Parts: sequence; C-alpha cells; structure tokens
Amino acid sequence: MKVHARLAELAALGAGADGIDRALFTPADHAARRRFADWARDAGLSVEQDRAGNVFARLAGTAELPPIVCGSHLDTVKGGGAYDGALGVVGGLEALERIAAAGAVTRRPLEVVAWAGEEGSRFPLGCLGSSAYARLTSYADIEALVADDGQTFAQALGGPHGLLAGVPLRDGFPGAAAYVELHIEQGPLLERARLRLGVVTAIAGQRRLRVEIEGRPGHAGTIPMSGRADALCAASEVILAVERAALALGETVATVGWLIVEPNQTNIVPGRVALRIDARSVDDAHIAEVERRARAAAADAAERRGTSVAVELIERRAAVPMEPRMRAIAARACERLVAETLELPSGAGHDAMCLAQVVPTAMIFVPSIGGHSHVAREKTAPQDLELGIEALAAALLLVDAESPFER
Amino acid sequence: MKVHARLAELAALGAGADGIDRALFTPADHAARRRFADWARDAGLSVEQDRAGNVFARLAGTAELPPIVCGSHLDTVKGGGAYDGALGVVGGLEALERIAAAGAVTRRPLEVVAWAGEEGSRFPLGCLGSSAYARLTSYADIEALVADDGQTFAQALGGPHGLLAGVPLRDGFPGAAAYVELHIEQGPLLERARLRLGVVTAIAGQRRLRVEIEGRPGHAGTIPMSGRADALCAASEVILAVERAALALGETVATVGWLIVEPNQTNIVPGRVALRIDARSVDDAHIAEVERRARAAAADAAERRGTSVAVELIERRAAVPMEPRMRAIAARACERLVAETLELPSGAGHDAMCLAQVVPTAMIFVPSIGGHSHVAREKTAPQDLELGIEALAAALLLVDAESPFER
Repeated sequence: MKVHARLAELAALGAGADGIDRALFTPADHAARRRFADWARDAGLSVEQDRAGNVFARLAGTAELPPIVCGSHLDTVKGGGAYDGALGVVGGLEALERIAAAGAVTRRPLEVVAWAGEEGSRFPLGCLGSSAYARLTSYADIEALVADDGQTFAQALGGPHGLLAGVPLRDGFPGAAAYVELHIEQGPLLERARLRLGVVTAIAGQRRLRVEIEGRPGHAGTIPMSGRADALCAASEVILAVERAALALGETVATVGWLIVEPNQTNIVPGRVALRIDARSVDDAHIAEVERRARAAAADAAERRGTSVAVELIERRAAVPMEPRMRAIAARACERLVAETLELPSGAGHDAMCLAQVVPTAMIFVPSIGGHSHVAREKTAPQDLELGIEALAAALLLVDAESPFER
Repeated sequence: MKVHARLAELAALGAGADGIDRALFTPADHAARRRFADWARDAGLSVEQDRAGNVFARLAGTAELPPIVCGSHLDTVKGGGAYDGALGVVGGLEALERIAAAGAVTRRPLEVVAWAGEEGSRFPLGCLGSSAYARLTSYADIEALVADDGQTFAQALGGPHGLLAGVPLRDGFPGAAAYVELHIEQGPLLERARLRLGVVTAIAGQRRLRVEIEGRPGHAGTIPMSGRADALCAASEVILAVERAALALGETVATVGWLIVEPNQTNIVPGRVALRIDARSVDDAHIAEVERRARAAAADAAERRGTSVAVELIERRAAVPMEPRMRAIAARACERLVAETLELPSGAGHDAMCLAQVVPTAMIFVPSIGGHSHVAREKTAPQDLELGIEALAAALLLVDAESPFER
C-alpha cells in the first residue's frame, strides 16, 4: 500500500512537537496539496483545481457525465493528527489507482478531491471548500473571509501558498453525481463494538453558544463571600448543567471546551468569564434542549449571584442524514470485506455534510485507536486503512454500476 | 493636604488604560521611589535606602534610639489603583511633616518607609522588602530571586531602576521600636458599617493551593459522555466545593481566581485544568478546613470521573494578630477624631505582617469606596484620607509618649 508512505509524507508537513499544524493556504497546506497533485498526475490522473482551493484528480469514464466523487481534506486542526482528512484523500487516490490498475472501466468519471479548509482553523468557516462547491456559501462571501492573521481568503488564494502553479483552474463549480467520503471515526464506537468498518447514518447537528458572565472583580482577601458576584462560580454551575443535560438526554454530547477567566489572578475574585458550549446530536430536539437548559442554568446563576449573563448562539447546523440508497451501497461494499459493519452517527462534521445538500452522499468510517482524534497520537491500524480503501473502491464501482441517483 | 497632589503624581507613574502597573525595580517604580525621596528631602527629612530597596525618611528625635516607624509600599499589582500602599507612604510622610510643622518633638526618631515589592508582582515573593528587613527571608535568598523577565533581584537592584542615585545606603537592616501602617481597607466592611476609621485586629492567615486535574482530551463531537474524563467538569465541582466551604465556615473567604484550560478549544473535551485556590481567615482552623474540603472534592471528582488530580500547597502563612497595646493606642488615636471605630481583620496581606514578627505593630484602615481595590477605580474619599493621616500622626505621638514596647 502506498497509503502508509503517503500519509507519513503528509504528516511531516506542518509537524511540530504537539502534532500537525496545517491550516489552509499556509506553506504546509500548500505543500500537501502540491504533493497530492503530483502523486495523482504520476498515477495518470488528470488534475484540476477550483477557485475555492479544492484540488480534483480524475480517472476518466466511458461517458461524459458528472463524476462520482470521493475525497476529504488535507488541512488539520492546530495540533492535529495524520489521519483526519488525509486518509480520505490519499485513500481515495489509492482507490482510483487500484480501480485503474485492475482494468475496471467505469461509465462515469471517478474523482478524488482534496477539499480546502475543512477544519476552519484559519478562516472563520469550516468546510470552506465543500461549502463553496455545494454553493452553500456564496463565492463573494468566501472571498471576503478574513483569516486570524488579517489576510482575506482572496488574498491568500492569490498568494504564494494559495492556488497551485501549473494546475488548470476550473471554471465555476461543476456538479457531481454522487459523493462517498472515507474517514476515520474519531471516536471509540467501532473499537468498542470490535468492528472495523462503519457506515454513517447521519452527521450530528450542532449548536455552539457563547456565554459571557460578568461578575464583580474584587480582592480575594477582603471581599466577604456574602458580597461577591463570582463569575467563575456562576460559570461552574453552567458547565455542570450542560454536562447533566447531555447525560440525561442520551445520544447527545455537550462540551465546554473553551473558557477564559478575567483578570485570572489568584488573588482577585473572577470578574468575567467567557465560555463556549458545543452541543451535538443526530436529534435536533436534543440539541435544542441542551441549549434551553444551558440558558436556564446561566439565568438562574445570574439571578442568585448578582452576575449578569449574555448567551449568544454563534453556530447552528441541523443534523444531516446520509442518503438511504447510498448508505445501502456503502454497506454492501463493506460487507464484501467483513462479516459485520456498524451503522453509526458521526459526531464530528465533515465535508460530506455539504455535499449531502446537493448530491446523494455516503460515508465510510474506519476505527480510531483509543477513539483519539485531533491529537498527535491519532491513529488507525494499517489493516483497517487497507479495509477502508478496498471498501471505498468497491463502493465507487457499485455506485457507478447501479447509478442510484438516476432512478 | 499635599496627599492628593502626591497620590495623583504617583498615580501617573505606570498608568495604563487598565490601571497602574508599577512592579518593583521597573522605571515606574524607580520614579515613584525617587519622588518619595525628593519630597522627603524637601520636607527636611533625612533619607536613606537599604539593600532590599526600602527607602526610609527620618524625622530626628531627642534620643538616639531605634525609631518608631510607619509606612507601606509604592509598588502595585498589575492594573492596580492609586491608594493601595501609596497612601501609607505619602500619608506617613505627611504625618511626619505635620508633626514637625506643629513643633512637636519626639523622644524617638520617627520614620516613614516605602517598603520594596510588597505586591509580589515581579519577583516571586510578596512583602519582599519588609520580609528582608524583618529577616524573615535571608538576604542571600532575596538576592537570588528571579523575576518574570529572568533578572535576579541582585541584578535589578544594581540596574538603572534599582537603588536610587545619591541616597545613602544603610548598612544592614537596623531595627525599629514599633510599627504603624496606614492603609486602605480594600474591602467593604467600613463602608457597610458607615464608619471611617478601622483598627486591625489581625491579618488573616492564608493558604494557596495549586490543583492540577488531568482528564482525557478528545473530540467534542465523537467521544460519548460515558467515555469522558472531562477536566473542566471536575474543576467546576472543586470550585463550587471551595465556595461552599467558605460560606459554611463563616469569617472565611476562599477563591478560585486563576484557572487555565488545555487545550482550550471549543471542539475538544478539556484534557487538563490547572487552578489555584486562595483561602483566608483569621482562624487558621478554618483555612485548614477549606483545604481539607477542597482536597476531598478533588479526590471525589477524580474517582468518579477517571481524572487524576494533584493538589499542592504552594503558600501558607499563619494569621498574624496585631500587638494588643499598639492596637489600643491606635484605637485611642482614632477616637480623638471620630466617635466610633471598627475593629476588623485584614483579609489582605500587608508589610505589617512581617514587621509584627519583630516589633509591636498596629494598622489603621480608612474606607475603600465600594470595597474596590487592586483595580483602577480603587478610591478613598478625600475626607477619609485626611482622617487617616491625622489618626496616624496621633498614633505615632502616642506610641512615642507611652513607649509601650519598653514596659
């Protein structure tokens, strides 16, 4: 398998002591897209890019029809691992190479795509490239996005680490016939079930809330407990209420992963705390209920403690079911390789969320060792990578043969 | 009163948008000590400094005896106010000027001291100058202290913002006969009691604990609630347990003012939280009980949640009672000016803590408007500043007349 060597080569790009930093249109990201384009050309595929920074490698079919597409992304979170995203790109490339090597000829072209900026780790929009491709965000809005470092998307795209030199630029965002994404699970469910291939039922919906609690800062030695409005004590109540809500609802996760205290000095009663709540479920009603309980806990703490509180919904997306016929095909492709597959939801967002809005879409998961993801030790066993690639290749051929989207 | 103009002049040194930054041996701190020395010389006092950076201004007495000393400090916390410390120095200077102007002649010399580095905002030792003076910390240990910026105390003392040029350097740390510190309350108790002068009963003891909670970081979308070891949820339980303990014990304050989350990303389950607990009371048993309950809460959370926890006692000081005869003198001095004084503990630490280990010591408090301190809006009403200076002057004369330390 080439996938090992290629994943290892990509893992070196942006590698640091605490994992990989490969944000969109940085030198490391540019190098990763360059590598992908070169590998694909060397494999005899035709390579193109679009104005969102997506890179496509195509294996021609017998008919001039919209392609069946697979892929994922090459950018990473800050301190990310070597498999999230990268597997779907190099695994997709290897699937196409194997199909070609086996002499299989498809009616429709097959494409593997490296979607730009899935992680949202530089520009304030996740699934950037797939969102542009599916026209969920207007290209004008994407061009105007401003990165952490002050550069606009348009500037970065035109800069030295943006578009790839010598790769033809597509006109617009021509459509696809279907989409299949191979990805690591990023959670422990396959491992717990001792299964090696999963078919995604739906991508969880998500809401993010920003909570700002204003208390009264004061000297930690001189302000009596009765005279305090401690923003961190109020925040602690909200954090525990969010956890209780997710536990009570089931099949729901809710997390306070980000919190800052001001002035954050040992001898000063916290005057202000900002925190963000991330709630996800395939059941949108559960997410709404987490939001309701978080708001109630914040309001209750504010009333009892004399703090003020502001809760803002900063991100919201509905759960996205995978297309039933595509799911069935993916399941059959997997079952050629293993006795049993796991049907499971995806708690993480993926480019497949955007594609599913416009074409029939399926996702195949391989296990993440220990459920670890978005960290340096993120890993999938070699034999599971192999299974994933075989399942993806089989699924692409089944989709081409059955053309479920044409019925 | 000169005190207004002088406090205003000092307040400009190190002033920023969020209050005053005047850490020891910075340009602003050097300028403040310079100003104090110049004012004292202009007032006819003799000025000296010692190798700890303390600056002394002396009004001679009729006998060559150890002096009766008053004072406080000129350094500030980061983002501090114009009164904490500075009042005791410029108020002390004005008290000595008024005594001299009134033609009062004391048997013992009177001194006003600006103690170096009380706030511990640059070197990792609070009450640095008074601690050296009272020989609670060896001078060799003080010289070796390393500031945030990497400079040792010895280097900073010898640098351009250390010792004052042209001010004689004392040999060693010659002793005092008694010590009286005028300070703002930094809390709301005088204001609540509608009283304008307070006599301190004791300076609260204090313990600081550092708590480190290690959980398991993971993807906020993919790790089910049942598989989590969320360090921030565990920390929230500890924070609320600390608050409950102080409320239950009474006359005790306990605060988590400093907390950091790692990796502090919205979409990652918190893998590590570090926090610091600050507990204070004039009853050492109460402080010990807060520590016990905090440790129990951390251990309980760790067991239930599968986090690990380390609790370290990083600072500990016993409550320091003020000397009874000195307290009585301070109370009589105050009662010449107001009908009623408040006897109250000091929740904050002061240089008087160190002095009290070696000489009879008292403290006089004036109100802090709104109880605010260590913030830019820290303020004491002009008429209360005036009362404080008069009370201090009266106390110094009473101490000289009654020499309580000689009985």
